[in-house]
Amino acid sequence: MQANPILVQTIRGNWVENRHRGAMVLADAEGQIVASLGDTDWPVFPRSAIKSMQALAMVGAGAIERFALSDEDLALACASHHGETDHVAGVTRFLGEIGLAADALECGAHAPTNPAARSALRAAGEEPSALHNNCSGKHAGMLSVARALGVPPEHYVDPDHPVQQRVRAAVETVLGVALTTERCGTDGCSIPTYAAPLSAFAGGFARMATGQGLSPELGAAAMRLFDAATSHPHLVAGTGHFDTLVMEAFGGRVMQKGGAEGVQCGAIRDLGLGYAIKCDDGNMAASQAMAAGLLLAVARPDAKQTALLQRYARQIITNVRRREVGMMAVTDAVFEAFGC
Amino acid sequence: MQANPILVQTIRGNWVENRHRGAMVLADAEGQIVASLGDTDWPVFPRSAIKSMQALAMVGAGAIERFALSDEDLALACASHHGETDHVAGVTRFLGEIGLAADALECGAHAPTNPAARSALRAAGEEPSALHNNCSGKHAGMLSVARALGVPPEHYVDPDHPVQQRVRAAVETVLGVALTTERCGTDGCSIPTYAAPLSAFAGGFARMATGQGLSPELGAAAMRLFDAATSHPHLVAGTGHFDTLVMEAFGGRVMQKGGAEGVQCGAIRDLGLGYAIKCDDGNMAASQAMAAGLLLAVARPDAKQTALLQRYARQIITNVRRREVGMMAVTDAVFEAFGC
Repeated sequence: MQANPILVQTIRGNWVENRHRGAMVLADAEGQIVASLGDTDWPVFPRSAIKSMQALAMVGAGAIERFALSDEDLALACASHHGETDHVAGVTRFLGEIGLAADALECGAHAPTNPAARSALRAAGEEPSALHNNCSGKHAGMLSVARALGVPPEHYVDPDHPVQQRVRAAVETVLGVALTTERCGTDGCSIPTYAAPLSAFAGGFARMATGQGLSPELGAAAMRLFDAATSHPHLVAGTGHFDTLVMEAFGGRVMQKGGAEGVQCGAIRDLGLGYAIKCDDGNMAASQAMAAGLLLAVARPDAKQTALLQRYARQIITNVRRREVGMMAVTDAVFEAFGC
Repeated sequence: MQANPILVQTIRGNWVENRHRGAMVLADAEGQIVASLGDTDWPVFPRSAIKSMQALAMVGAGAIERFALSDEDLALACASHHGETDHVAGVTRFLGEIGLAADALECGAHAPTNPAARSALRAAGEEPSALHNNCSGKHAGMLSVARALGVPPEHYVDPDHPVQQRVRAAVETVLGVALTTERCGTDGCSIPTYAAPLSAFAGGFARMATGQGLSPELGAAAMRLFDAATSHPHLVAGTGHFDTLVMEAFGGRVMQKGGAEGVQCGAIRDLGLGYAIKCDDGNMAASQAMAAGLLLAVARPDAKQTALLQRYARQIITNVRRREVGMMAVTDAVFEAFGC
């Protein structure tokens, strides 16, 4: 198997310290590849990057109308949130709307991702709960599917539960490929994650942004989820996070969502293009540099958007005394492959 | 440039999630390569992996005799310690022996690496100091060089200061290669780090373990540093850390020392062999898996040592609910290249 190209390098002083390989692909809603680097047929675990696709299971089950879910609820269903006040309050409200509470969540508890929220919780002498889990909004969405279907919500994280069957089918429809238990793992929050070719996620995100290639009902729901996420960028991640900052800066033009272990997906709606990125070694910062490089090359950013993306495409590295000692930077290969 | 081989893979469920490439080399004190994988001529930053070599600057300056430094002091000079009680007390004592205090340290302050020590400091309402910096023992050693030379210690971290000139010369002697400012960066603790071919570090560690290939004085000091580190494994890293556990398990036969960004170096004294490893992407856990794989293949471990090394060569990955969801494991390529 040929090695993927080096997409990001870390420089310390005047010499290369680390090299990050990976694959990147830009595709339209028909699945036509517009540009790519590396092996984009290789199946990768999308992890949290495709929460918006998983949320489409709510459509078929009729959960959105049944419980009159708000755009804030839908944004949280697409989110890897940081456990800040608005996230915890939002998921609590979402669960209330479907007649459930935090004890129905099967994602497990972890401390808030946001450092200030973590400190505040500790200072209050409270333990982290499942509400603080970055996936709790997605789980509330999955519970809404169980409630709409009228099935017992217990064990909704299991691959054979009707909820996960619906989630899998929704993702298969958007991707246009079958998911298989032969390339299946358990995600951090205990639901199944299925590997699929990287290029399928790029085409899928183009469909999420435009509704093209989907049934009218599913297409409308996909676009509503895209709108919900891009209108509430803080709910989708949190203060200071790449995904939130990019969506804020692009004001509805771009959806950007990371997934654990170096996955980045998104779409540029007005260009009708979706993208998918996997850093071979799982490094998140490097995958963000790759995504920033792609958006710089493709998304026609204005000056302010360019300044933001440059900060991620060339990330300054400081030492303990905050001296600038190096840089993690996307390589020229990215601009050459994705440039105009 | 040809890609280095895949040395570690992360499996989630039944599919590969991440791939870590790198180079590994095993050499004797003459610098003869016994086994290798990947490009071992490529210059890499050794970072903290060569603190024991840097500590040899104390020999030429006469600091060890002048201040009657103990084996504990020498172990701390070789350490990336975790800011636990014995580390902080040890460095404080070391500084006292050379007539200095914590304010002479130029490494900067960071919170203890050890979680319990970090919590205790926070609970006491105290701020982290330079003593908690994992490099404070190395810095105490460098300050002892300044004191023995009778030069002002201020700015001892600067490349042009007599201390860093001595440190650089000591490392060059042990490696048998010239270090160059053309491949130089600033380390996390503000001292210079010079990149050199990976294979040179393997040969250098064989010399540190055996004294062979060094002058009688330097060889004796190298062996004393090796003895000091392997007799005080907790001082060199900390509770539960790979380096500490390996050195405890091998009882003086093996020195093992990690460096930031996926570097691992060490030596198996009775075999007269040193090793050096660099994970291309800087992942520390992956580099520990590589080191564990090398030691399993080469160091003739007994059952207890084997059990420890297996835990690192095949690291279980759990999710938020502590379910086992995958494994980071060294590839067969390592055992094929380094096996008997």
